[in-house]
Amino acid sequence: MDSCVTAAIAVQECDEIAALHVSYGQRTEARELQAFEQITDFYRIERRLATDISHLAQIGGSSLTDSRIEVSKADLEMKEIPTSYVPFRNAHLLSIAVSWAEVIEFNRIYIGAVEEDSSGYPDCRPEFYEVFNRLIEVGTKPETQIRIVTPVIHLKKSEIVLRGVELGAPLHLSWSCYRETEIACGDCDSCALRLRGFQQAGLIDPIPYKKRE
Amino acid sequence: MDSCVTAAIAVQECDEIAALHVSYGQRTEARELQAFEQITDFYRIERRLATDISHLAQIGGSSLTDSRIEVSKADLEMKEIPTSYVPFRNAHLLSIAVSWAEVIEFNRIYIGAVEEDSSGYPDCRPEFYEVFNRLIEVGTKPETQIRIVTPVIHLKKSEIVLRGVELGAPLHLSWSCYRETEIACGDCDSCALRLRGFQQAGLIDPIPYKKRE
Repeated sequence: MDSCVTAAIAVQECDEIAALHVSYGQRTEARELQAFEQITDFYRIERRLATDISHLAQIGGSSLTDSRIEVSKADLEMKEIPTSYVPFRNAHLLSIAVSWAEVIEFNRIYIGAVEEDSSGYPDCRPEFYEVFNRLIEVGTKPETQIRIVTPVIHLKKSEIVLRGVELGAPLHLSWSCYRETEIACGDCDSCALRLRGFQQAGLIDPIPYKKRE
Repeated sequence: MDSCVTAAIAVQECDEIAALHVSYGQRTEARELQAFEQITDFYRIERRLATDISHLAQIGGSSLTDSRIEVSKADLEMKEIPTSYVPFRNAHLLSIAVSWAEVIEFNRIYIGAVEEDSSGYPDCRPEFYEVFNRLIEVGTKPETQIRIVTPVIHLKKSEIVLRGVELGAPLHLSWSCYRETEIACGDCDSCALRLRGFQQAGLIDPIPYKKRE
């Protein structure tokens, strides 16, 4: 959902769009790839790159990529980093985006990271993106000018929902559940955050759930 | 060669070693993987991870990964970034290493980047590693303590050769050529830098070359 609304914002702000998808051996990777294809179809984005870094699953250490670790029931009050944290994942996504952007000479990378109303992943904090912007400056050609844009990072989930609706983002095509691929579980961290966002926005989430509470 | 000597230094400085290989669709990837296996066998390193980020070849933009761009003859006086630059490559390598290190709870990442006596890649400069260390601090769990170590970054190639010989590093098992996989061309940037290093060290490179000049 965050990526979908971020895409809607990028479509509005940019002349030309290229869409990147990264599978990383997560449980729901086929469903997420389907969402990527449907959302990019919706926006008629032709330039697409679907990549695979399944070594993140080999590395493991996360309930999303290691089937031996259970995807825990949501606990939105918990202050610890949840088991769904995929170690340093967003550095991989951004590295791929930077390499691609440098070659095709694009200058902005939009990513739907969310800080506060989220699971507390360290690689979703604004500082991470500030440092990454500096890394791009020192690690690419002198003429390369790329910066990362995080348009929803300070928004609450309910504000992301409202922004999406306002922009006509195809939220019905997005997928957030960490566990299921046909009917969302309604019970994992990602479902719980999304459902609470819709509820606080006074709206009904258009995707199917096993339970909504 | 730089990686091989860096491995020799790591073996000397650390109690426990894990070795990471990354293929990225470069022309000589099978030969480099062979070198990785032979060098890790030499050091009896059991913990190994061989990964593949061949989307870097899909992205292209480099003579190493795009067969339509010729690997140019060496020009060691050139001040521009050569066509062999693989955009932002080292950020990918380090991201994989950080994810792995965070999961297996290792705290140092050794990488054989060389600044001065090299091809002038932006992601081989000390600043790049300083910023990356900061990125690790902000992008991983609070208890994770990982830092990148670049033991050969300020050395000249001849000093790297001498350091390798001093440590008994298996330089005969290393591979540097960008073009060939059986007999090194002696003509690309990487061969030229390596050959000059051996020459300035007053030693003969043990690997076979088509020409040595």
